[in-house]
Amino acid sequence: MEGSIRCSANYVPLTPITFLERAATVYQKTPSVIFGDVSYTWPQTRQRCIKLASAISQLGVSPTDVVAVLAPNVPALYELHFAVPMSGAVLCTLNTRHDSAMVSLLLKHSKTKLLFVDYQLLDIAKGALQILSKTTSSKLPLLVVILECGHPSSPHTHNAEETLIYEDLVAKGDAEFEVIRPKDEWDPISLNYTSGTTSNPKGVIYSHRGAYLNALATVLLNEMMSMPVYLWCVPMFHCNGWCLPWGIAAQGGTNVCQRNVTAKGIFDNIFRHKVTHMGGAPTILNMIINSPPDVRKPLPRKVTVMTGAAPPPPDVIFRMEELGFDVTHSYGLTETYGPGSICTWKPEWNNLSKDVQAKLKARQGVPHVGMEELDVKDPKTMKSVPADAKTMGEVMFRGNTVMNGYLKDLKATQDAFKGGWLRTGDLGVKHPDGYIELKDRSKDIIISGGENISTIEVEGVIFSHPAVLEAAVVGRPDDYWGETPCAFVKLKEGCNATSEEIIQFCKNRLPRFMAPRTVVFGDLPKTSTGKVQKFVLREKAKALGSLAKNISRL
Amino acid sequence: MEGSIRCSANYVPLTPITFLERAATVYQKTPSVIFGDVSYTWPQTRQRCIKLASAISQLGVSPTDVVAVLAPNVPALYELHFAVPMSGAVLCTLNTRHDSAMVSLLLKHSKTKLLFVDYQLLDIAKGALQILSKTTSSKLPLLVVILECGHPSSPHTHNAEETLIYEDLVAKGDAEFEVIRPKDEWDPISLNYTSGTTSNPKGVIYSHRGAYLNALATVLLNEMMSMPVYLWCVPMFHCNGWCLPWGIAAQGGTNVCQRNVTAKGIFDNIFRHKVTHMGGAPTILNMIINSPPDVRKPLPRKVTVMTGAAPPPPDVIFRMEELGFDVTHSYGLTETYGPGSICTWKPEWNNLSKDVQAKLKARQGVPHVGMEELDVKDPKTMKSVPADAKTMGEVMFRGNTVMNGYLKDLKATQDAFKGGWLRTGDLGVKHPDGYIELKDRSKDIIISGGENISTIEVEGVIFSHPAVLEAAVVGRPDDYWGETPCAFVKLKEGCNATSEEIIQFCKNRLPRFMAPRTVVFGDLPKTSTGKVQKFVLREKAKALGSLAKNISRL
Repeated sequence: MEGSIRCSANYVPLTPITFLERAATVYQKTPSVIFGDVSYTWPQTRQRCIKLASAISQLGVSPTDVVAVLAPNVPALYELHFAVPMSGAVLCTLNTRHDSAMVSLLLKHSKTKLLFVDYQLLDIAKGALQILSKTTSSKLPLLVVILECGHPSSPHTHNAEETLIYEDLVAKGDAEFEVIRPKDEWDPISLNYTSGTTSNPKGVIYSHRGAYLNALATVLLNEMMSMPVYLWCVPMFHCNGWCLPWGIAAQGGTNVCQRNVTAKGIFDNIFRHKVTHMGGAPTILNMIINSPPDVRKPLPRKVTVMTGAAPPPPDVIFRMEELGFDVTHSYGLTETYGPGSICTWKPEWNNLSKDVQAKLKARQGVPHVGMEELDVKDPKTMKSVPADAKTMGEVMFRGNTVMNGYLKDLKATQDAFKGGWLRTGDLGVKHPDGYIELKDRSKDIIISGGENISTIEVEGVIFSHPAVLEAAVVGRPDDYWGETPCAFVKLKEGCNATSEEIIQFCKNRLPRFMAPRTVVFGDLPKTSTGKVQKFVLREKAKALGSLAKNISRL
Repeated sequence: MEGSIRCSANYVPLTPITFLERAATVYQKTPSVIFGDVSYTWPQTRQRCIKLASAISQLGVSPTDVVAVLAPNVPALYELHFAVPMSGAVLCTLNTRHDSAMVSLLLKHSKTKLLFVDYQLLDIAKGALQILSKTTSSKLPLLVVILECGHPSSPHTHNAEETLIYEDLVAKGDAEFEVIRPKDEWDPISLNYTSGTTSNPKGVIYSHRGAYLNALATVLLNEMMSMPVYLWCVPMFHCNGWCLPWGIAAQGGTNVCQRNVTAKGIFDNIFRHKVTHMGGAPTILNMIINSPPDVRKPLPRKVTVMTGAAPPPPDVIFRMEELGFDVTHSYGLTETYGPGSICTWKPEWNNLSKDVQAKLKARQGVPHVGMEELDVKDPKTMKSVPADAKTMGEVMFRGNTVMNGYLKDLKATQDAFKGGWLRTGDLGVKHPDGYIELKDRSKDIIISGGENISTIEVEGVIFSHPAVLEAAVVGRPDDYWGETPCAFVKLKEGCNATSEEIIQFCKNRLPRFMAPRTVVFGDLPKTSTGKVQKFVLREKAKALGSLAKNISRL
């Protein structure tokens, strides 16, 4: 329209860096980060991040270079979520369960210039650099060691000659460093490698725009007022902690960091710091509900828990709420900056039985306020499935909080966006009220005698057995049926159950063809984000051979 | 970064239209709009807006054409905040206190194609068209009459031959109309004419991007969880109701509409609909605290009240809180989509005396989460003033929630953005904690004997006098001092006070040179948004002549 001018007065590329600048002005005395007895305020965190950004620049890191971190949820990892973008570089958070070989692969793929590593993971990092030195002629990334926060002379000390120390960088950085802002909000802010349950990890690119918008959306879907107290259980290396390192700054909240996640640590921190919000995969919820009574503490107030990464079994939700937690279920992928949908609670559900409520909460729900659309579609025709709670299709997202693409893998990006939507590879149905419910990963679904079996549904039933701690179901190849359901079950300590009991329990609650034919007891293999590695279980199930062989021989 | 693709899967122009689409899916049974006994749900509101958008298109309105509305806070005005943008057009909300001459001027300036008018304001609109027919050869805007909501055969009926009826448009619109989304988020969504206390009104252009971001920011600064119940006292024609028509949809809240704002209506609606949030200029707060006891009702829960448009006198805030309201003070201009800053409450202020608390709350504070920067600067050098609570400078904003510009007035846009910041024309100081406090409009400040006198400070003191209902201070020309403070005061019903008492009251509480020399009793002239029209008072003060004439003759 005539009379408009776009200039610095009215147009600023969206970036979460803004949140930190603002928090330092607005929330001057609010604790920003707490870790054991160490506590910072927002102006201190801002100052530390500016100095760190300056130090990163001084080390020769240029805008759009990648800076990687290998660390658990310690304060340094929080600070790097701001300091790295403030230096113009791209933050790559690495999974702390990776071995040296995988770390070296990712450093090479991302051309990392600088690697921050927690002192406990130093051997992994050194091993990775050693491997890297043999496979590349490029300059190796510089190493910066993060010592124990608040203990400058950590016992696990280093050779000062060969490595840089995190706190030295903070100390020497220029407090007057001019923060580098993105020129375009579409510029990358971070790189998140997918957990890679099957193939080689892919580097998911997040933009400043997406991070800003998802941070605000996540604040809203967590029902966070200003100054929340957030307990970090979700690893920040996973989807940048669902964008909450940025979101907590937007609301001037307090980040309670923990090196390790234990039930005792969770209850102690909630009690001590009056935690208002936390998040975690169902594994964390499981840890809480199965914790011994002596580590439990009464909650000073209701704690809102966002769960995700895997659909929470209704029984887990139900028991969390008995303990005073308010569980909200969110769903998303690394490709959607973490949460993309939420099972928004409806007031009309308040009067339903607790059991039905827990089942409703396990749905993946509706897109959050930052996501444009969520749909279940036929992946070939791209037509929406009818909202009949029965017809399965592929779950797809579309919106500003979907990744820019996969680093150096245009083909994979094109495949993921085919038809103008992000294809999740998850199968689901749409309920008449528009809420979606996941039935399975495309590759996890069991097809037995032509019938689709949702492994999530079978797992949900097994979970409700009182002796069961964890359960996962995969297809076992079968000469007659194609596949039959095979359950892997971990029992609670001191509890007993036989295969026959579990199978009968399922037959009483499910169509008979959905009940597992086989039950294997033992630990479940998992990724660092708490997802069961079903490809490992499928290998195991395959090794069991076909049940039908005997039948067909009859 | 290599591997990125920008496409419909991951890039969607930001627009508040998204909020309505989502609310209709997520909040299916939540009341969207309530007006007396009429109530709609979110899916109904969406359906009505789509049909209305279709009808607007069918009437020949093209994208970027202007559609104007002249109506109080009735449901139609709410719906038009979505329906007009959904037709691709630009919404222009007109002040209901304008006369036909002003309306005709604005219709002409904006080249309005379609004018919606509430039946009670039909004469104004017809008068405006009549004037317009004499001054332009272009086609006159079509008129659509909004009858009383829920009363299709309103007594104030119309000549069906000559005008269109709002509900007919809704009824006849195409339910399958494909909503028009902005191609670029920078595209205009609305046009807001400034209230024009001094010069000709200017048409402030809002973008889809700014409206989206300010709506989310406003939700956050109002501390709104999902499904708030919002009572409409702020006119939606003023800065698009501070962007809350869009914000309430984002949170799936309920809009309680009222045709007129009265203390009785406010208390009745709060009680009946369990209102959680409302907003209003200090005039509205005044109306509440001075309401007769028989219209008051106990609040079912704490009601958060956002006040703005003029700095609230501490005493008003104090007495609102005694009644159970929680007052938050926000500051902004039409040019900043309404609220641009907020006086964020600090936990450390909780232990101060109520009196000091109220004074702190009257500060304009810090930028909200959608605004990039707020500063007090020397308007010539553009240097920030020291944060000493004393040095005055011009208040300036910078960020995505600053207007695109003034329609067809590039010169005015350039002046407003000179130096890359929005110049507000307000004078203020910065406190050591970074919070800003308004001292005056540049043109309102009194300069007496070389000393700056903040009229806001003097008004605050007069307000705290128990007999005073309203007060405004302007400069009275003076041959000796340049100017002296002249107070215009309206007393509460049944209360008495003399000029001498008011002057002495001020001398006891302020530096003597700041106390008014003159006090005039009577009603105060106001704009429709509750701002006192100081230019009218200045004329009156001028007419009084100089006090010093007599002195200089001695």
